[in-house]
Amino acid sequence: MGRQLTCFLSVLAGFFLPGVVFGLDLPKDLGKETAECVRCHREHTPGVVADWAKSRHAWTRPEAAYEKSPSTRRLSAEKPPEAFKGKVVGCFECHGQNPDSHTDTFDHLGYRVHVVVTPKDCETCHPVEAGEFARSRKAFGYENLAKNPLNSRLADTLAGTPAWAGGRLVTGTATEEAKAQACGGCHGAPVTVTGTGRTRTAMGEVEFAQLANWPNQGVGRLNPDGSRGACSACHSRHAFAIEDARHPETCARCHRGGHSPADEAYQTSAHGALYRAREPEFDWGNVPWVLGQDFTVPTCAACHASQIVNERGAPLARRTHDYGARLWVRLAGAPYSHPSPARGETHNLRNAEGQPWPTGLDGTPVAQGLLAAGEQEDRKDALLTLCAACHGGPLPWGQFEALERVNRETDAGVRAATDGVREGWKRGAATPENLFDEPLERLWVEVWFLDAAALRYAAAMGGAPGSGLGRGLRALEKELGTPAPAAAR
Amino acid sequence: MGRQLTCFLSVLAGFFLPGVVFGLDLPKDLGKETAECVRCHREHTPGVVADWAKSRHAWTRPEAAYEKSPSTRRLSAEKPPEAFKGKVVGCFECHGQNPDSHTDTFDHLGYRVHVVVTPKDCETCHPVEAGEFARSRKAFGYENLAKNPLNSRLADTLAGTPAWAGGRLVTGTATEEAKAQACGGCHGAPVTVTGTGRTRTAMGEVEFAQLANWPNQGVGRLNPDGSRGACSACHSRHAFAIEDARHPETCARCHRGGHSPADEAYQTSAHGALYRAREPEFDWGNVPWVLGQDFTVPTCAACHASQIVNERGAPLARRTHDYGARLWVRLAGAPYSHPSPARGETHNLRNAEGQPWPTGLDGTPVAQGLLAAGEQEDRKDALLTLCAACHGGPLPWGQFEALERVNRETDAGVRAATDGVREGWKRGAATPENLFDEPLERLWVEVWFLDAAALRYAAAMGGAPGSGLGRGLRALEKELGTPAPAAAR
Amino acid sequence: MGRQLTCFLSVLAGFFLPGVVFGLDLPKDLGKETAECVRCHREHTPGVVADWAKSRHAWTRPEAAYEKSPSTRRLSAEKPPEAFKGKVVGCFECHGQNPDSHTDTFDHLGYRVHVVVTPKDCETCHPVEAGEFARSRKAFGYENLAKNPLNSRLADTLAGTPAWAGGRLVTGTATEEAKAQACGGCHGAPVTVTGTGRTRTAMGEVEFAQLANWPNQGVGRLNPDGSRGACSACHSRHAFAIEDARHPETCARCHRGGHSPADEAYQTSAHGALYRAREPEFDWGNVPWVLGQDFTVPTCAACHASQIVNERGAPLARRTHDYGARLWVRLAGAPYSHPSPARGETHNLRNAEGQPWPTGLDGTPVAQGLLAAGEQEDRKDALLTLCAACHGGPLPWGQFEALERVNRETDAGVRAATDGVREGWKRGAATPENLFDEPLERLWVEVWFLDAAALRYAAAMGGAPGSGLGRGLRALEKELGTPAPAAAR
Repeated sequence: MGRQLTCFLSVLAGFFLPGVVFGLDLPKDLGKETAECVRCHREHTPGVVADWAKSRHAWTRPEAAYEKSPSTRRLSAEKPPEAFKGKVVGCFECHGQNPDSHTDTFDHLGYRVHVVVTPKDCETCHPVEAGEFARSRKAFGYENLAKNPLNSRLADTLAGTPAWAGGRLVTGTATEEAKAQACGGCHGAPVTVTGTGRTRTAMGEVEFAQLANWPNQGVGRLNPDGSRGACSACHSRHAFAIEDARHPETCARCHRGGHSPADEAYQTSAHGALYRAREPEFDWGNVPWVLGQDFTVPTCAACHASQIVNERGAPLARRTHDYGARLWVRLAGAPYSHPSPARGETHNLRNAEGQPWPTGLDGTPVAQGLLAAGEQEDRKDALLTLCAACHGGPLPWGQFEALERVNRETDAGVRAATDGVREGWKRGAATPENLFDEPLERLWVEVWFLDAAALRYAAAMGGAPGSGLGRGLRALEKELGTPAPAAAR
Repeated sequence: MGRQLTCFLSVLAGFFLPGVVFGLDLPKDLGKETAECVRCHREHTPGVVADWAKSRHAWTRPEAAYEKSPSTRRLSAEKPPEAFKGKVVGCFECHGQNPDSHTDTFDHLGYRVHVVVTPKDCETCHPVEAGEFARSRKAFGYENLAKNPLNSRLADTLAGTPAWAGGRLVTGTATEEAKAQACGGCHGAPVTVTGTGRTRTAMGEVEFAQLANWPNQGVGRLNPDGSRGACSACHSRHAFAIEDARHPETCARCHRGGHSPADEAYQTSAHGALYRAREPEFDWGNVPWVLGQDFTVPTCAACHASQIVNERGAPLARRTHDYGARLWVRLAGAPYSHPSPARGETHNLRNAEGQPWPTGLDGTPVAQGLLAAGEQEDRKDALLTLCAACHGGPLPWGQFEALERVNRETDAGVRAATDGVREGWKRGAATPENLFDEPLERLWVEVWFLDAAALRYAAAMGGAPGSGLGRGLRALEKELGTPAPAAAR
Repeated sequence: MGRQLTCFLSVLAGFFLPGVVFGLDLPKDLGKETAECVRCHREHTPGVVADWAKSRHAWTRPEAAYEKSPSTRRLSAEKPPEAFKGKVVGCFECHGQNPDSHTDTFDHLGYRVHVVVTPKDCETCHPVEAGEFARSRKAFGYENLAKNPLNSRLADTLAGTPAWAGGRLVTGTATEEAKAQACGGCHGAPVTVTGTGRTRTAMGEVEFAQLANWPNQGVGRLNPDGSRGACSACHSRHAFAIEDARHPETCARCHRGGHSPADEAYQTSAHGALYRAREPEFDWGNVPWVLGQDFTVPTCAACHASQIVNERGAPLARRTHDYGARLWVRLAGAPYSHPSPARGETHNLRNAEGQPWPTGLDGTPVAQGLLAAGEQEDRKDALLTLCAACHGGPLPWGQFEALERVNRETDAGVRAATDGVREGWKRGAATPENLFDEPLERLWVEVWFLDAAALRYAAAMGGAPGSGLGRGLRALEKELGTPAPAAAR
């Protein structure tokens, strides 16, 4: 191939390029397969190798981590995995693991490797984290959408591109590909093997497992080995750095705008502004994360996930990879605020009307599957320990109460919008078959899915409140038209 | 209490947590009360203590500042306050000041302390800054809203959640709590004492003064000692760092989106882009701030507040804590652009129609209370000195003229929108009783409150112009409906 | 002048200001004219001098660059320009170049200088870059708008402020000044000489060439020397730093929101999030830019412009100042996605209906002037080399296919919207004379100009998809009203 020749020549040219200092430090303790991976991939995917070569994985033999105390150790397996003894964690340690359970395993120049490294692979060294994640709502990001007929209908309606037929627009069901693109970037999509085949690469055509919905790093991805989730959603390949995951921009990829406007709230909060002013002074990688020493204002990770201690090492929060574990109330994703779901799976909740939602259309929480009042209080107390580290006395309670008040007020606003839609159904201005598609209903969706969520997130984090519910409610009223005379109601 | 035992045990655990380097440097010159505060709070609010322990307050005895020249000194009192002699500024120096004027003073384990530290407390060392602030529009952020019946009506209409009654939505007056949340985060809210009571904390129940509308750091907050404002709106607790206040994200908390889209204009300006590219090289803390040495592109503070000198120390701008003091024209907060108000209080302005606004509904400025033409020119000349440090010759004038042109054009657009609303009142499509609530009027509010403000800010700072007025005006025209026949007009 | 005295006194004061360390390092090899410029301007425009004094221009004699290898050299002239021999590049080297071709040349205290430094001036040392830029779409940013009657009509409609006449709004043609402000900040505007005159400066009144539309740094600016473009759009004055241009915020000034929402896509992509987490570790100035060593995630420049090599110096991408040169498909600026234009000038394209657009209203690409299929594949292969450096195997192809799918789907959506508008023309709900002004047409503009662009950019970069086309299409359907009975269609 001409391309291969070009490649070879440019490599050669590279060796002699004067005036540039090159060089990549590589660890010595490479597994023999990984050493061979690196020898080729250093040329062919240099960015991957360089990213990994700067990582902790590249420079740490898992057994070395066990010389550290449990709270500072970054592995949670009870003992170092036998298979990795004497080696750092390199290409083959991950891409060559559990080959039989991976339907995407293929023969790559004599090695059985798979493309999609999954939480099941990471679990070998990080079982506590993988387990917490597996039980969290994040792991069900795709299924809580796809297996919930109501949420799925909403996704179809929002992601489907209407077509013109008979003088009016007709919304069909959105294609799986459209949803994988529009929803799947965050929620995840099923990555499945479609066969093997040759792919054009910079070094000619090479045989690979061929995958549908790839690339996808959505947090609730369904993997070719049957597992759920993508650790790489937050711990980006191939550095897998805690530093990356602790930055709020990592979370903001999915929690910005639309129905999860957490980043807008954070950025307009004191926490968000101070993060920007002070981030260069932070130690982003220390474990545990020492409040007041490593960082002085919280990022998303500090409040929702990280192991935090004070300057003497006393624990303020234990690490969790269930990102909802410190929360007692859920602010978005359903019309009304409601107690946090007790489990990661929510598509099996049923409200009084039999709908798969955590509350009824009137806001009444489901009887089963949400946290009980006592459990909510326990979580509030746990978060209080963290808040109170920087905000003494009644302040955190004032903040919690402000959130509750805003939840009550936005819930009342959503109830008003819902009453408007019900009135529209009565008058024939819309039909309740699909709750989301007609103009009146689309305005209702905006009120709870977007505007109420923005208000609640802002109240939770002390950020700017967005534009409020008034605008959407007024538009809904207008869409509903002149009220029927009093007698008719 | 079980909680206290847990706390004690975790402290103990902390001392022995191996593998983590802990330790907080503490100053020696602590006042005796502060020393006692720190001894406990180091455990119970470690974030507060750590944040403060890194601050200038913690390491500077006020009298030491008087060894520096006035222009590099960070205190403006004529001489060091006697009461602080020999001590750095710690917990009790602020929270124990002026106990009798604070209605939130309470007994805390034998000490009389108050929760809400106010500009009156900061004034002891920073009287010039406190005085400038007290006369600025910022200090009246709450009152210019609450005591202005027109602005107050607007806030009620925007922040109130309509309810459904008799087949239509009814907007009531927004609750004080809703406004404290929606408007008060920036404008401030009245923080009042509701009594004393015990609050659950990480160390058990403790007695505190109990406050309404707390937490609140809005810039025009009404304080329990009768003073106005919150220095902590920009100088965040407990570092109170000039570095924080000079970062544009601090300002952007309130001046982003909605009716004050300054951050959007800044970010899309050359200044904003270069700030992001160069910020790691800046010296964020030097006083005075040396243009070209400490920083090479302005943040909000550079143009609006900071003391700026050139590389030889020649003054380019004197420090001001009246953030409008370098501006001659006001771009937002009222339908039309208008000369800057002469005083911080604006709720007592009256236009020709008797409304408490700086211009009439036709755009005519009020006769009293705004800067005269000569005063406007003086401010333009003062700002010119700063602009001209980086932009020679006619360039700043071109920029000023572009702003004036956009002000004229947006004022014309607002006049067109206002004419549309007047026409609607004539036709009975809306009633002028509440200027803001009906659909036609809400569109008018969008035109001036949001879209015109975005265009003017963009012109002032050389940023992207937003979506323009056309969209809102067209919507307003549509809402108004088919024009009455020519004869009827 | 009193002002001059003040200035003198403040300079004097500066010399004696105690407690501040001042001082600006200045290079020795200044041209004699530049030395004289600096002597005065150090006082009068200190920010300009300081910014330049930290730059490579200030410390590099062009001939010294020729001791470096071509790939690390930052000049592209075959040999060092004779005129600059022995001198660094200072004020007069740029502002004194080509005086006769600059209509803005004027006498400044005995020196013939011009205000607006243009790509023709920069070309002396950087001819390859200037040439690539001159042939790119960026250089035609103004003309592709102003000389294209359709785009120009769109700009008039969007930027014009409607006036109220005869009971309805009338959109006139936007003034040139309004367009220079609203569109020209990014697209550029014609900067023309209106005469010479005295301008008030911090040092009194001084004679200058007087310019219309100044300041303007829009990328397609028409210059007083007849050239096109502004290098300073990305390489900001007076540092002209590659570091600035490589930061994504520089690009985001124009490519954020509205019809070019690239920054939104980037920020919600893995690339954008990791950039924010890792930027402090990057070497922003190295040439060539070493992937994996200098940077580990791409900014805009990395994918679209920079010379990139791997750690051994092997080229991954050659530098280009035609920012579209690595792209095969154009996503925005016209209703449908289409093959990249073959040249920078696009206002002379004609679709089958004779309209100056790259596709017909049904989406069919023009026969002449766009890349042929083979040329598109070549560009895809070239970009693949870069993508594949970090993303091996089928991943880049999966990404390319996802983009193609979204292009097809959004094109179908735009076709549906266009059918709706055509239907409206048939029914008399709007007239096709101006394609953009009536309510129905404005909604159509939103669908393709804003919403479809957001979806396509997101798909291209792996970012969040925005709000989709459904909302706009529904609004358009509603605006169109009840469909005519089937028989009438």
